[in-house]
Amino acid sequence: MLMQTHEARLSALREELKRRDLDGFVVPISDEHMSEYIGSYAQRLAWLTGFGGSAGSAIVLRDRAAMFTDGRYTVQVREQVDGAHYDYCQIPGESMSAWLKDHAPEGARIAYDPWLHTQGWVDDLSAALKRKRIELVPVADNPVDAVWDDRPQPSSAQAVVHEDRYAGRNSSEKRAEVADWLKKEGHDATVISALDSIAWLLNIRGSDVDRTPVALSYVVAKADGTAELFIAREKITPELERHLGNAVTIRERSEFESALGELSGKSVAVDPDFGVAAIHQLLRDAGATPVVARDPAILPKAIKTPAEQQGHRDAQARDGAAVAQFLHWLSEEAPKGSETELSACAKLREFREATGALRDQSFDTISAAGPHAAIPHYRVDEESNLPIEPGSIFLCDSGGQYLDGTTDITRTVWIGPGEPGAEQRDRFTRVLKGHIALAQARFPDGTPGGALDSFARQFLWQAGIDYGHGTGHGVGSYLGVHEGPQRIAKASGPQPGTGEPLRAGMILSNEPGYYKAGHYGIRIENLVLVVEQEIENGEGTSLGFETLTFVPIDRTLVDRSLLTESEIEWWNSYHAQVRDILAPQLEGDALAWVEEACKPL
Amino acid sequence: MLMQTHEARLSALREELKRRDLDGFVVPISDEHMSEYIGSYAQRLAWLTGFGGSAGSAIVLRDRAAMFTDGRYTVQVREQVDGAHYDYCQIPGESMSAWLKDHAPEGARIAYDPWLHTQGWVDDLSAALKRKRIELVPVADNPVDAVWDDRPQPSSAQAVVHEDRYAGRNSSEKRAEVADWLKKEGHDATVISALDSIAWLLNIRGSDVDRTPVALSYVVAKADGTAELFIAREKITPELERHLGNAVTIRERSEFESALGELSGKSVAVDPDFGVAAIHQLLRDAGATPVVARDPAILPKAIKTPAEQQGHRDAQARDGAAVAQFLHWLSEEAPKGSETELSACAKLREFREATGALRDQSFDTISAAGPHAAIPHYRVDEESNLPIEPGSIFLCDSGGQYLDGTTDITRTVWIGPGEPGAEQRDRFTRVLKGHIALAQARFPDGTPGGALDSFARQFLWQAGIDYGHGTGHGVGSYLGVHEGPQRIAKASGPQPGTGEPLRAGMILSNEPGYYKAGHYGIRIENLVLVVEQEIENGEGTSLGFETLTFVPIDRTLVDRSLLTESEIEWWNSYHAQVRDILAPQLEGDALAWVEEACKPL
Repeated sequence: MLMQTHEARLSALREELKRRDLDGFVVPISDEHMSEYIGSYAQRLAWLTGFGGSAGSAIVLRDRAAMFTDGRYTVQVREQVDGAHYDYCQIPGESMSAWLKDHAPEGARIAYDPWLHTQGWVDDLSAALKRKRIELVPVADNPVDAVWDDRPQPSSAQAVVHEDRYAGRNSSEKRAEVADWLKKEGHDATVISALDSIAWLLNIRGSDVDRTPVALSYVVAKADGTAELFIAREKITPELERHLGNAVTIRERSEFESALGELSGKSVAVDPDFGVAAIHQLLRDAGATPVVARDPAILPKAIKTPAEQQGHRDAQARDGAAVAQFLHWLSEEAPKGSETELSACAKLREFREATGALRDQSFDTISAAGPHAAIPHYRVDEESNLPIEPGSIFLCDSGGQYLDGTTDITRTVWIGPGEPGAEQRDRFTRVLKGHIALAQARFPDGTPGGALDSFARQFLWQAGIDYGHGTGHGVGSYLGVHEGPQRIAKASGPQPGTGEPLRAGMILSNEPGYYKAGHYGIRIENLVLVVEQEIENGEGTSLGFETLTFVPIDRTLVDRSLLTESEIEWWNSYHAQVRDILAPQLEGDALAWVEEACKPL
Repeated sequence: MLMQTHEARLSALREELKRRDLDGFVVPISDEHMSEYIGSYAQRLAWLTGFGGSAGSAIVLRDRAAMFTDGRYTVQVREQVDGAHYDYCQIPGESMSAWLKDHAPEGARIAYDPWLHTQGWVDDLSAALKRKRIELVPVADNPVDAVWDDRPQPSSAQAVVHEDRYAGRNSSEKRAEVADWLKKEGHDATVISALDSIAWLLNIRGSDVDRTPVALSYVVAKADGTAELFIAREKITPELERHLGNAVTIRERSEFESALGELSGKSVAVDPDFGVAAIHQLLRDAGATPVVARDPAILPKAIKTPAEQQGHRDAQARDGAAVAQFLHWLSEEAPKGSETELSACAKLREFREATGALRDQSFDTISAAGPHAAIPHYRVDEESNLPIEPGSIFLCDSGGQYLDGTTDITRTVWIGPGEPGAEQRDRFTRVLKGHIALAQARFPDGTPGGALDSFARQFLWQAGIDYGHGTGHGVGSYLGVHEGPQRIAKASGPQPGTGEPLRAGMILSNEPGYYKAGHYGIRIENLVLVVEQEIENGEGTSLGFETLTFVPIDRTLVDRSLLTESEIEWWNSYHAQVRDILAPQLEGDALAWVEEACKPL
């Protein structure tokens, strides 16, 4: 039934391409802001193909089509997308350019929506296709939209003020910093299209995208400290207008294209990862000079103000109490065999909502029982929902959006009765040792996250094992739960690290793991804040991490004999802090459970 | 007196530039092979300016000149080069292009010798100077040579066969591997100009360059497995001719230029780091297509054959006995206060020569007393020579060239009487802990050296300190003591790391250090071989290191209380091996000294 729908949609798109005299069209999962999470109005790939993953693309030719997904979605794409209509291509091995060279006729015109791709993507693919004389052409209107009858409208939710007491700096200070940068670099203006950068720059938030509290808009910030905000008028309240003040001109979002035309003769900075090709094209058409440069909001956004740092501490303490109540509930109920991944999800959300402060989840909860825990990015739905079996490992990775901070925590727990096996405890303890090594690391100011990644892996490497994801991502302040530019990861491979130096005030996750496919998975994740370290007789500035997340780690899974004295000290000191932070917020059985879980190891 | 000489030489060069209607000339420290160590015939910068460092460049304009050196030579350049004639510029902050933009007239023609620079250098500098309409022009003959009357001739030493029993593979197998690569990549030939690559490919060695046993030559290797060797006829013996066989055509080195002209219409691979601009230009002029691709000898040369691995073990054992005798001698003589950096150097060389197997030192010995040890690349001469003071730290970094292997070892020792201070022992022990952590590391096959670098620094970082050089470099087999492509180093900064995956068979140094400027320096260096690790229940291939260097580490400098049980086990096991390897080679007091030094800690 579904497959028939998708077949009809594919046919309709092909008719549309034919009508426009195009030989093919590229359908990514993307919006005009290159967002990580995108609104339903922009879910073109899911509508067209049925694919429900968060990363992937399709190419539709007149007589053939292909899905391009990475290793995480090898199984899922085959379940959700009909192999009769789409070739399955696994990137990066099977690239779009290689597939097009094999299947598109010489001289073909392959279309793309310039609002959904970066200029770099366009340049690279164009160059790769040039030899076979395949031309990549932009379209003015997306042909999927032309045949998507019931396409949702973009959200019309109101934008709201993000108070200075949470942000710690007002918008005019931030705009002055951007203006200083523009003057120093010799640019007249910058187009800011990353939604979280706009939210940060103007101290506003919104509800247009699930999980990330941002408002659909664009900003053109200028070297004189003024800015133009392009946003649907219906989103603007009088309060917001007062907040934005005279230096920020509010214009209709639909005027954005023509406003770029007003930058004739100007040098305009555009971010390579977030500024789409259409922005470059419109600037060039207007006689402006687009210059590729990193969005000037990205680095200051990553370095949290003292108010944001304190907000995170407060949010994590509140969130930690909710998660602790959940873990207590789980320890009582799950051993009875009556719970499922979905029921656990719902219960966790209940505890978070009971704080009265939850604005949203910060991402879809990963509630993973047994073998599902071995899938690092598992998402539960009615179809996949597994019972949580007594005598097994359960992994839960979740987070909340609060006005004062964004949380992200993973705990892996043993569901009684019975005891975990020796291998499971060995693996859990190695993951824990890596987590502690990273938490205790000290390093010179300016060290990039890539230089710390191996600290988290070393004990797994000693056992000949590893995990296939990064160790730490940046986290926003009531913004994206994944936020650049800093990362702790390998220099290459999946989720590669960056050379971005770590700076005091940055927040990252610390989340090593281990995954035994088909059996179980382990991950221990806290958020950490980069802080300066006072070291006697030290030379230069040293940095280290302050842990922000306080929730008991399951001691049932620990093999104490593998821990050093220093690691046991870390465990005991951490759990003493957990107790101090959570106890005042809890009572009854939940309090007793935390007290018990926080006893010295 | 010297200064007057250099002033006269500068004037003579300026006259020559005027005669040729050039506005300036760039003088690097470089030869036609982009060698690390260069022959005296190519020491143009030292001749012109008096600068004795190993890295730097000058630019000479009609009325102004500048020296470009890095932070290592800030003091030395001011001592050796007259500030009345040369501006001092510290790279990378003060670049050639910036200095030329400030001081060369618009429209100037700045010359360079295309045999002494890579094409990348030419392209980058040309692009940087374009805006000011400064043109970078190649010269056919080096103008320094035109005014350097007593310029030494390139060495005429004979080339010799490097026996297969040392190399472990014969030259025709190696040429077949290169030919396979050329065919796979679709190239007709490759120009190999790195002298160690030529030595490796043809299993020959030479004596044309100090410290590295290579012969001045070029090779053009072809997709059919044949090769042309361009080399001065006087270097060729009948034995070498027999060794090279029919598939290698020997031609005069002077025919190399015209031979490139014979490659018309061919696709020819040229290494980006070792193929000079002149090679690119001659190929282009001939109608060939130079393609930038890594010299195909570099990776297989780095992965030692079993014969080369065994050769290294043998060479290190022999060299270790010489170094141990030296350390024993030092422990007897230096506390009397009668020795100097130079006398120690000479004594160490004596012990190495007494092995009867030494072909050369692998680099100039770093014999560094007291504060000189804080200069990582210190070179002693008559003028700098310091006495080795009783009650101080002495650092010695040295190596030998043997037919079966190249060695490189650093030991830092306390010169009695008296005891080192608490800080010195703390620092030494942290360096030792880092050395051990790297020696004991296990990691997945394909991990780059950059991912291991922090293991060696972590204990220094915990104390708020660090060292400003890389942790490990590749080492050749009776070839360069510094050999790429693998490295263990930070991703950026001085001596940056590479993303080159480590592979079983590669040899690297393991040499963390600590330097307190003006006071003392510490470095502990062994060579290690990358080996596969058998790990029970491991997933995929794991690698680790086998230590190759066996010489006692000075226990006087160790603070045992800072070591873990596992580190003490490593120390004891290492020294038990040292004893087993050295004892059979020693007798009398030296043997007793080693026995004592190798007792459990």
